Formats: sequence, C-alpha cells, structure tokens
Amino acid sequence: MCNTENKKGKAPIGVFDSGVGGLTVAREIMRNLPNERIVYFGDTARVPYGSKSKDTVIRYSRQIIRFLRTQDVKAIVIACNTASALALEEVEKELDIPIIGVVKPGAKVAAASTRNGRIGVIGTESTVNSHMYSQLICSYQKDIQVYGKACPLFVPLVEEGWLGDPVTEQVAKRYLDELLPKGIDTLILGCTHYPLLRPLIERLAGERVRLVDPAYETAHELGLLLEEKGIANRGEKASGKEPYRFFVSDAADKFKHFANSILPYDIETTRKINIEEY
Amino acid sequence: MCNTENKKGKAPIGVFDSGVGGLTVAREIMRNLPNERIVYFGDTARVPYGSKSKDTVIRYSRQIIRFLRTQDVKAIVIACNTASALALEEVEKELDIPIIGVVKPGAKVAAASTRNGRIGVIGTESTVNSHMYSQLICSYQKDIQVYGKACPLFVPLVEEGWLGDPVTEQVAKRYLDELLPKGIDTLILGCTHYPLLRPLIERLAGERVRLVDPAYETAHELGLLLEEKGIANRGEKASGKEPYRFFVSDAADKFKHFANSILPYDIETTRKINIEEY
Repeated sequence: MCNTENKKGKAPIGVFDSGVGGLTVAREIMRNLPNERIVYFGDTARVPYGSKSKDTVIRYSRQIIRFLRTQDVKAIVIACNTASALALEEVEKELDIPIIGVVKPGAKVAAASTRNGRIGVIGTESTVNSHMYSQLICSYQKDIQVYGKACPLFVPLVEEGWLGDPVTEQVAKRYLDELLPKGIDTLILGCTHYPLLRPLIERLAGERVRLVDPAYETAHELGLLLEEKGIANRGEKASGKEPYRFFVSDAADKFKHFANSILPYDIETTRKINIEEY
Repeated sequence: MCNTENKKGKAPIGVFDSGVGGLTVAREIMRNLPNERIVYFGDTARVPYGSKSKDTVIRYSRQIIRFLRTQDVKAIVIACNTASALALEEVEKELDIPIIGVVKPGAKVAAASTRNGRIGVIGTESTVNSHMYSQLICSYQKDIQVYGKACPLFVPLVEEGWLGDPVTEQVAKRYLDELLPKGIDTLILGCTHYPLLRPLIERLAGERVRLVDPAYETAHELGLLLEEKGIANRGEKASGKEPYRFFVSDAADKFKHFANSILPYDIETTRKINIEEY
C-alpha cells in the first residue's frame, strides 16, 4: 500500500489547454508545488476552443485525457477556461483519478473575497459571453453582481510580447474604463494569458481592487487535493530526466518560443503528436 | 446550349473563408460584379486555418466545396489566404467548375506594379511565415525583393471595430516602421481583414507606396474568368429571393454582427450547418 502510494506520488500531473495560455497554470504549479512533475499538452492545432460547441470541446477533452493517461498521470488540471466550463463536469464522471479546472477555484476565491458584492471578470469574448464565472459565483453566494468585459486584444498583445508597452496600457485603460465605474472590489483575470499583464492591470485598477488569478488558485487547490488523496509527491524537488514534458498538436516552434518567454527556464524539447489518434 | 449557358449564368458564385475575413472579398464581388449571386460559407467553428497543417486545410476545403456544390454554384472563390496557398492547387484538379484563390491575383498585380522591385507583404503570422506571396511573385518575376511583416494585432483591432482609433494608428505605425525603411514601392494587404484598415495604412505608407488589395484583384480576375468561360450573368442586377446567402459552421451571431458592419446592407439570415457532414 505504502509502496503503491509512493509510486503514485512520483507520477506526473497532466495539464492541458487549447494552446499556450495554460502555461501560466503550469508555471504556478512549478512555483507552488515544486516536487510535482508535469506533462503539459497544448492543443495548438485546434486552438481556440472558445468558438467551438460544447460537444466538440468534450470530444477534444476526452482525446487529450486519453493521451495524458498514456503518460501515467496521477491527476489532471484543465488549464483552459472554455474546457473547464464546458467539459469538466462530463469528463469528471468518467475518470478514476482527480481532475480540476481553472474556473471553479477562481470563482470560489472571488466570491469569498468580495466585500461589497461587486466582482469584475475580464476574459476572451467566449468566456465573458458564456457567463461561466458569474454562474459559479452566484452558486456560492447569491446577491453578488458580476460584471464581465471581453478584452479580445489582450491575448495578441501578450503574444506579441508587448507587456509593458504604452499601446497595451492604452488598450487596458480603455477596457477597464468600462468596468471600474461599476465599483468592483474584486477582478478575476479570466483568461490564462492575463496573469502576464498583472502588473499593468494592478496599477490601473488601483489598490481597492483585489486581483484574483485563477492560475494561482488552481495550483493551490491542486496542492490541497493531492494531499487529501494522499498522492502528493513527498520526495524531493521534481528532477531526474525531464521533470516537465511538453506536447503539442501542431507548430511546436511558436509554442517553444512563447513557453521560453514565460517559464522560469528554457524548454529543450517539445513533441508534436497526432491528438486525433487518441 | 444557349439555354444551358443562361441557366448556368444565373447560378451563384461560391465564396469561402475560414471565418468572417472573406466577406471583404464577397464585398468586392458585390461591388464589381453586381449581377452575380453569392453563396458565402465561413468556417467559424474551425477558424483559424493559419495554424493548421496542409492536409487538414485540404480536407476542410474539400468538405466546403462539397457543401457549396449542393448550392449549385457555377464557380468558387477561396477567399482565405491560407486555403488559397495550401489547398487551391490540389482541389483545382478535382473540379469541373472554375476555382480561384486570393493569393495569385494579388501577387500577379504586385509583381506587375512594382517599379523598383521592392514589395512589402503584411498579413497574419502564418501567411508571412509561409512565404506564399513571395514564392508566387518570384515565379512571375525574378529579382524582386519581398519583405514580409506579420501584423497579428490587426485582425482583433478590426474585429473590435477600432478602425480609425489612435491605438490602431500607433500599432500600424509600429508595424510599418519595420517595413517602410526597406524602400518598398508596393504593399500587399495580405489578409482579408486588412482592406478595412486601408485608409489608415494608405496615409501612413505615403503616396509613393501603391497598395495592392487581393480582394479587389480577385473580384476583377473572377469577372474575367466568368466572361472567358461564358458563364457571367448577363441578366440584371442580382436580385430575387436572397441574391446573397450566408452559411457558417458555428456562432452565427458574431458573424452577422461583423458582416453587417462591413457589407453595404444588413444580412437578415445566417444559416448554421454541420460542415463535417459533407
């Protein structure tokens, strides 16, 4: 028994996203759970998920989970807002290992943190239009007003690397000007790319607004879950041959470039697989 | 014989794109060939094509062509840079009706128009990295230098509707500042969204740079082709029940909103179909 647990503890965490954005979630897991190994899959061939139907997103998620299981993962993190909202409930039923998404941990912390009951959510058009955060927040606590604002320019600005750029600041100002007058005291960074704009958003939103980063909250929740299930890696810092492995479904070069710009170390190998075979 | 031709002349032109961008091509066909009816298909569920492999883009194009043929089209326009570059040559062999793409007409006019042999191409990352325009231009005329610059923020800026916005001007300036010092005298708007930024780009590029709009050149080339094949509609201005029909593979609302902002009239109906069935 003890042996089995030990072996399971050493197994990696499977993390997946429609593309590169979920790397901010992987980064938080690396920072906060340094003992854990990670197998990351970015569905770069079929990105973005936001415009796809629920059935399609469930089908894609199932394929990815089947692939991740071939890598002997002990738990799975859906590091994609759309897949968390559309597929988690469905695939959870089919699995005998723990799985969590990014939406619930972010919504939970936001609901607990607001003092005046006014929460803002920024994200892609599809995340904001789906009301995924507001539905969950209201399930934790009624009488909360959730204000959404789609910020479609943020992802390409981040991918251009214009993080501290005056253009990005003007765009962010424009977006937040529609949200801040609502009197929000809590703001959810509802897209996996947005934590990279955190310093700028923090400065523009001001001291009175608490920023909630679902990537960080998810890593935190994952830690609790691994402890609870007795499958946390109690050994040493993740090391050995490739503690972090990266797989994509297309165009590995761009992925590698972006990964190297946000992870605390340079990725050496990215493997391209045919996800439709799973 | 005469009757058949007449009947064929009245059949619509099939136009397809990975999403909404190809509407600028449809718009040019409406303007320049007002007698022609159009069936437009936007593959909004599987957009963007730029990150997809050649095999996938060919497979998608074949499905769309099969769907368009159910609408009795007499000719097909691939109003998508990626599909024109990757799939045209392949699907052309399989068809008994005329088909053209947007890349060749743009490249041909640019090669003929440059005086100093220096041409700029702006487009999405995948269009620029694929060198699709430069390869074609060099096949028309050697000794031409083609300078590409990816402008990934242009599509979301256009989709935000920030066409004459100071932010868009700053972004455009930044992009063109990398291209204009090369001494180009011709600039291809190598993405179907870019004609909507034409006034701004024209102003920034200055009088000495001729802008080439592949959407316009494609409509022009289509007109010549229809005449040559004897299938132009010699009747009256396209009218009757729905001279222009629009089909999409997902999220018809966003499509309709964008279409209404760029077409000279408001679309009433957009039909969502399951393209994977074709």
